[in-house]
Amino acid sequence: MEMIPVGLVGVTGYTGMELARILVTHPVLRLTRATSRAEAGKPLKAIYPFLQGFPAGDLSITAPDAADLAAACRLVFLAVPHGAAMDYAAELLAAGLSVVDLSADFRLTDAAVYAAWYGLPHRHPDLLPEAVYGLPELYAASIKQTKLTANPGCYPTSVILGLTPALSAGLIATDGIVADSKSGSSGAGRKANTPMLFCEVHDSFRAYSLGKHRHTPEIEQELSKVAGSDITVSFNPHLLPIDRGILSTIYTRLLRPMPVEEVHALYDEFYADKPWVRVLPLGKLPETRHVRGTMFCDIGLVVDPRTERLIVVSAIDNLCRGASGQAVACANLMCGLPVDAGLHFAPMMP
Amino acid sequence: MEMIPVGLVGVTGYTGMELARILVTHPVLRLTRATSRAEAGKPLKAIYPFLQGFPAGDLSITAPDAADLAAACRLVFLAVPHGAAMDYAAELLAAGLSVVDLSADFRLTDAAVYAAWYGLPHRHPDLLPEAVYGLPELYAASIKQTKLTANPGCYPTSVILGLTPALSAGLIATDGIVADSKSGSSGAGRKANTPMLFCEVHDSFRAYSLGKHRHTPEIEQELSKVAGSDITVSFNPHLLPIDRGILSTIYTRLLRPMPVEEVHALYDEFYADKPWVRVLPLGKLPETRHVRGTMFCDIGLVVDPRTERLIVVSAIDNLCRGASGQAVACANLMCGLPVDAGLHFAPMMP
Amino acid sequence: MEMIPVGLVGVTGYTGMELARILVTHPVLRLTRATSRAEAGKPLKAIYPFLQGFPAGDLSITAPDAADLAAACRLVFLAVPHGAAMDYAAELLAAGLSVVDLSADFRLTDAAVYAAWYGLPHRHPDLLPEAVYGLPELYAASIKQTKLTANPGCYPTSVILGLTPALSAGLIATDGIVADSKSGSSGAGRKANTPMLFCEVHDSFRAYSLGKHRHTPEIEQELSKVAGSDITVSFNPHLLPIDRGILSTIYTRLLRPMPVEEVHALYDEFYADKPWVRVLPLGKLPETRHVRGTMFCDIGLVVDPRTERLIVVSAIDNLCRGASGQAVACANLMCGLPVDAGLHFAPMMP
Amino acid sequence: MEMIPVGLVGVTGYTGMELARILVTHPVLRLTRATSRAEAGKPLKAIYPFLQGFPAGDLSITAPDAADLAAACRLVFLAVPHGAAMDYAAELLAAGLSVVDLSADFRLTDAAVYAAWYGLPHRHPDLLPEAVYGLPELYAASIKQTKLTANPGCYPTSVILGLTPALSAGLIATDGIVADSKSGSSGAGRKANTPMLFCEVHDSFRAYSLGKHRHTPEIEQELSKVAGSDITVSFNPHLLPIDRGILSTIYTRLLRPMPVEEVHALYDEFYADKPWVRVLPLGKLPETRHVRGTMFCDIGLVVDPRTERLIVVSAIDNLCRGASGQAVACANLMCGLPVDAGLHFAPMMP
Repeated sequence: MEMIPVGLVGVTGYTGMELARILVTHPVLRLTRATSRAEAGKPLKAIYPFLQGFPAGDLSITAPDAADLAAACRLVFLAVPHGAAMDYAAELLAAGLSVVDLSADFRLTDAAVYAAWYGLPHRHPDLLPEAVYGLPELYAASIKQTKLTANPGCYPTSVILGLTPALSAGLIATDGIVADSKSGSSGAGRKANTPMLFCEVHDSFRAYSLGKHRHTPEIEQELSKVAGSDITVSFNPHLLPIDRGILSTIYTRLLRPMPVEEVHALYDEFYADKPWVRVLPLGKLPETRHVRGTMFCDIGLVVDPRTERLIVVSAIDNLCRGASGQAVACANLMCGLPVDAGLHFAPMMP
Repeated sequence: MEMIPVGLVGVTGYTGMELARILVTHPVLRLTRATSRAEAGKPLKAIYPFLQGFPAGDLSITAPDAADLAAACRLVFLAVPHGAAMDYAAELLAAGLSVVDLSADFRLTDAAVYAAWYGLPHRHPDLLPEAVYGLPELYAASIKQTKLTANPGCYPTSVILGLTPALSAGLIATDGIVADSKSGSSGAGRKANTPMLFCEVHDSFRAYSLGKHRHTPEIEQELSKVAGSDITVSFNPHLLPIDRGILSTIYTRLLRPMPVEEVHALYDEFYADKPWVRVLPLGKLPETRHVRGTMFCDIGLVVDPRTERLIVVSAIDNLCRGASGQAVACANLMCGLPVDAGLHFAPMMP
Repeated sequence: MEMIPVGLVGVTGYTGMELARILVTHPVLRLTRATSRAEAGKPLKAIYPFLQGFPAGDLSITAPDAADLAAACRLVFLAVPHGAAMDYAAELLAAGLSVVDLSADFRLTDAAVYAAWYGLPHRHPDLLPEAVYGLPELYAASIKQTKLTANPGCYPTSVILGLTPALSAGLIATDGIVADSKSGSSGAGRKANTPMLFCEVHDSFRAYSLGKHRHTPEIEQELSKVAGSDITVSFNPHLLPIDRGILSTIYTRLLRPMPVEEVHALYDEFYADKPWVRVLPLGKLPETRHVRGTMFCDIGLVVDPRTERLIVVSAIDNLCRGASGQAVACANLMCGLPVDAGLHFAPMMP
Repeated sequence: MEMIPVGLVGVTGYTGMELARILVTHPVLRLTRATSRAEAGKPLKAIYPFLQGFPAGDLSITAPDAADLAAACRLVFLAVPHGAAMDYAAELLAAGLSVVDLSADFRLTDAAVYAAWYGLPHRHPDLLPEAVYGLPELYAASIKQTKLTANPGCYPTSVILGLTPALSAGLIATDGIVADSKSGSSGAGRKANTPMLFCEVHDSFRAYSLGKHRHTPEIEQELSKVAGSDITVSFNPHLLPIDRGILSTIYTRLLRPMPVEEVHALYDEFYADKPWVRVLPLGKLPETRHVRGTMFCDIGLVVDPRTERLIVVSAIDNLCRGASGQAVACANLMCGLPVDAGLHFAPMMP
């Protein structure tokens, strides 16, 4: 099959690193440009020794340049911080490229909400209607048609996939939902800062940004669409001393008593043709290692009759499913490939 | 000061190990007996090389024997599984000893609740009224008077200390409380079993026993006492890839809107003369490492106006504050010593 | 391409688990039998939830039975302990199957050496001459011809690949070699035992079996072949608090002063057509994560002029390159497939 | 007892943090000044929340000022980088203070060697003869007399204590010694840099600075003194994914065959009155966790008759014994206190 050249703007972070990992074994998408102002001129393997021996390891890092990217690539992944991504996207779209933006810049449909949570005005609100939220289980058809995919956040991926069947079926109350999420440290990025040093994270656990994390409006936007009414969620992240993985424990109230078997059947049916979402057998609960390095989202279901709660536990790999793998799935769809091309990863165990 | 001889029944588990760690530097309590059927005859340092060089390292492990313990000790710590502890306690109390039971056998005042959650009948229900729940912040006066202390569970310690000020002041709804707790692996004990092997826990995270953990009735019993009405809690534990530490994120609903400063002042006042409970400055959240190896319970407070929730985060060391250190605090009180004798640990950082 | 049915005897250990991980995405070898006496009757996904969604996850575990294996498979992997493997091998070979034995039973060509180091007599010494040591870089041609491959040990793989170029070129003294090796915990196997519990391994580091590890004679046998003279090695293993990975730091004495560039060129040339061995650029040293989940062996070279030593550092993934991946490479060769079929893994980073 | 006021220049690194941890429970030394230009004006607990509740937590951080330190303190710990420490030391000594320098600035007696390895000239070579190398087991008498202690490096502490008995007794060859050392990540300091981020260290292992680490001349200087002849050592450090701990595996050649029992007896006798050095029973090897948070140096001894080697394994806590705890021990001696005042730590297990 003819290879499709793709570019990667922002190769030095963990999502860039993970895109590189995935693309080196992708059967069709070929990494043709990898950009970083700081590292321009070096071969990719100089900053990523783990790529020595792969052809992409010899790729020379370039400074980002829209014209060059447009000439060399058909699709570009943006793995740069929010705020920076929107301008790249505008420029690359104008040059005719397809864009998968891994930042938050095009996830929120309302520019005012973006401005409120991210603390800066959106400079390209005109592009927002064109952006498709890149969750393949919900929006595959639209992703195939778009030139601009807003790749979902890692936490939102876990919470939205966890709640969608229950909310769309009207099983649970739309108020009072609590998502207690725990993420591996790669979610914090690769910038040098003391609080993310090994000795500050290892053998410890902490909560952060309770009720204030920027993924909150994204979760609420998508769940509101699913439920058909405005939903406010208490979203609360924590930092795990692991590399990869998000596990969200989501507390909901059943609108009427219901045996867990019934909930399970409903989830099973909802995701029957979505092989990446694995609804676990009753009695089993997800573990982040079971999805490590993969596109899986494992879901465990518990009904607690004492408190009339449905507790949904969902686990993903924040870097693969929650970022770069999902971006490749979207790129696959945008390029007319099977959604899972190059994404047949088995979990790394142990 | 004259030393007080104490015994430890069940030295081979992590709570036994932690008791040994604490007692070797205790100024008054002297470990005089350490029992284990399996290891009897060996010096303590043979199974715990970290104790080489401490006098207790040369203590010869014995098989448990009530008469011998009674002759040699004034107080005995029981660090054996529930079910086994109650008989030891009865026998030792009959022999005139004071007992601190680290198991669950005397925590629940209602023998029927014990039988329902622990799956076995209580064989010494007559002793239940004599047992004092060993949480020094709430029950120091009673602990001083008793011969039988039921040392609190690790999770309950974190949840009860976290909620008591809010519940006793009537700030929050008594229904709908969710405690999402995360514990280090030492909480699972030291028995050989595959799911707790390094490679099954490391670099992963999982939930377990959601809504069904045996610490639930203990939490409900104590919180109901504090609130003055029956409380049902959704208690949900998770396993962290760390050695020590519990962090509980507790979700409550404020009965009336209240600035977080007001909640903070109330907590500060409640724990003003309880130096082990550290109410953190607003904006700070607990980390398990900040209490590692100590008696501290760190509490962080968040009011989320979007969801009208008070979120309480509490962190303890499950082995020290949540088990053996707390047991020593109770023993101190029972022996007429200052509650913090031998417990002046600074957190191990990093 | 037609699929080739293969069997796996001993699926419950870490090498069995890793074989399952690798085979579920293999393009030709299809896992058709997976055996375990203890788990027989269960689908594979019941013990390995991470395989849910893969066809192999639905494979029913069977008790090991040579006739059944012979009827169903063309090749069988033995992932059972040494001592047990030799009988399975004999039986399966007699039934006409090809066998890749991951245990030590056929690695040592001298049955007396086996008996001395493993503490039991070899019950099938007649098979020893037929067994080929399964290191593809050295013995690919023979592996293609054999029905019985002795899959190398994990430590030996790292040490032999690290020293072969220098020894075969006569650069270094054949006496006085020290290999200081450090392995991840999966190397200790998956049996429940207290010293391998999370809390016994995490945040710690220890040496073990210094000078006495059973991989010693295997290393010496292979290095002696390479050097053309008897070599005695001081081999000394250590246990790392990581899941996967071996890093061996190997201390040798240069026979004559030599610039490191010259040594590097020699290694580069030696492994020029062996893509899995990556000789790192001068100044770079291996890290276990750079080979995680892969077949790579990364080699770093240091010449220390102060001590006239050549220090070779080699890193592999003990489970993939050091066990199951290497076994699949051998199986590939034995089945007439390219050595790297199904083994195009990029390192999991981070 | 009257408290002795001490100061700490450079409180923000891990050695400063560890000094703070130790001093808050010290019975005599009272932390009276803690300096940091970047954090001046904040209470110590603002940067170290783990100190909330300790009097020192309320200490206000100041900018370093020799006159102020001289007025307020009797002794000052320097926990600043090499190069910076020497000027502080000169100034403080001139002001009449005692100084314990945790940097390398006064460890090497030869200013030329310092310049060669540290890449800068020594600006106070006149002070070098006054400095005492602060290893209490070897130099307690001199430490008591000096105003300037050069606190040993972490790696050298482990290697020197490990080799001294064998070298001073002439058991082993003075050439060909290899020290393969592995250190926890706190040894790399607390400065923000990408290679020390959690995700770059966790679940991995790497070698670094083989043959070139700056602790090499310090090791050689001290071992040469012990042996009475010039010793060149191949010293090779590695980075462990743990917080604290160094384990050195030291390879030597016995000058004449000797049963390990004889070596053991010699070590036992050598350290008979040095309670912090624990010579382990034959057959036991050190683990870093067994010395975690303490002053212990655990030593394991192996004689390998096949290679005629004596292998010495030594383990310390790099932050406590290898830095701040040792500094406090020296301060104790310099202040006329028992060497172990405030240092009665039992290992944190697990």
